[in-house]
Amino acid sequence: MLTLDILPEIEALMDKQGVNPQTKEHLLKCSRFHTFSAPGLLIGVYMTEYALELLKAQPDEILYAVSETHKCAPDALQIIAGCTVGNNRLRVIPIGRFAITINRKSWDPEVEGVRVFVDLNKLKQYPIINAWFTNDPSFDHHGNVMPLLDEIFIAGRKILSYEKVMVQTEIKKKWKSVTCTMCGETVPDYLAQGDLCISCAGTNYFRKISI
Amino acid sequence: MLTLDILPEIEALMDKQGVNPQTKEHLLKCSRFHTFSAPGLLIGVYMTEYALELLKAQPDEILYAVSETHKCAPDALQIIAGCTVGNNRLRVIPIGRFAITINRKSWDPEVEGVRVFVDLNKLKQYPIINAWFTNDPSFDHHGNVMPLLDEIFIAGRKILSYEKVMVQTEIKKKWKSVTCTMCGETVPDYLAQGDLCISCAGTNYFRKISI
Repeated sequence: MLTLDILPEIEALMDKQGVNPQTKEHLLKCSRFHTFSAPGLLIGVYMTEYALELLKAQPDEILYAVSETHKCAPDALQIIAGCTVGNNRLRVIPIGRFAITINRKSWDPEVEGVRVFVDLNKLKQYPIINAWFTNDPSFDHHGNVMPLLDEIFIAGRKILSYEKVMVQTEIKKKWKSVTCTMCGETVPDYLAQGDLCISCAGTNYFRKISI
Repeated sequence: MLTLDILPEIEALMDKQGVNPQTKEHLLKCSRFHTFSAPGLLIGVYMTEYALELLKAQPDEILYAVSETHKCAPDALQIIAGCTVGNNRLRVIPIGRFAITINRKSWDPEVEGVRVFVDLNKLKQYPIINAWFTNDPSFDHHGNVMPLLDEIFIAGRKILSYEKVMVQTEIKKKWKSVTCTMCGETVPDYLAQGDLCISCAGTNYFRKISI
């Protein structure tokens, strides 16, 4: 497990491979947020930086992002691009591809954006990343993963490709507050089923126990 | 808009209302991550701190969380509890209630957790928060929101209630890598439709344009 106590070792590896200071800062900051230096997170940092550069984004510009996977990549977008789940500028659309898209704000139904993804053809030059990424049985997830991180720092953006895309935007819904007659909590009207919230109507991830 | 340039003013308000140093640090850190001091985020900080205390969580303990809304609250969980979208310890279940649940790791199908929510009955003592929270037309979203923040700092946890719950856990799926025959990218087999990824099979949030 690449826990934060071995961050100095990982930092030394970055220095050895000549990772630039800005990227290094992002890699460390994202690792602390994520609570460990996951390989996918490190690749996510390179993807996010690449997308921002292609978009010619200004520092602190208000941007919107999609991650096509819930694994690791969303955290790089949250820390580096300021697109968080809670500020509603990050959508995680569970397609399962290791790809992200970043675009500017728009009131139009679609807006130009940049999509960055891991390119399988380019990955062939990096056998350890390739084995890990494709979940090949030859990769030992419980063994020493430092050679994998080393290869990730060597590869940087060289395993990535991009495309320009038109992204469907989401319009902020107007809403009224509805109080569920069962639990007594409020929900927006567009998430209510009659006079019940969807949890009391049946979609529950928990059951109550006495305190 | 409660952008970061007025953070010193908000900090002064916290001091005026005697917000304790630990909570203040959380409020400021979450605001920077969220890119502004949203009222819901500030309430989310109090909710997260309360849930952690009720759970008797240790510092840096590995925890799992659910947010029943995508609005603001997930960001407090990510920063304070270390449960992020990308590290797979935060689930956003879009029920629309302003409530969170935190629990410990478990290999069982369900595990005890603490659910904290905004209590409508308690909210009646705080008319500005109540008007904002219930989206009442009397609340001017474009006017001065400092009185709202002031009331949030006065109220702290006093608008919250909790319950003990048994949370359904999620088991990490085993997967094989599948290469989509259309886009050439890989997805886990459980997210493929035949030899296509679900994006190429029809679930698309973008369309390609030429570079």
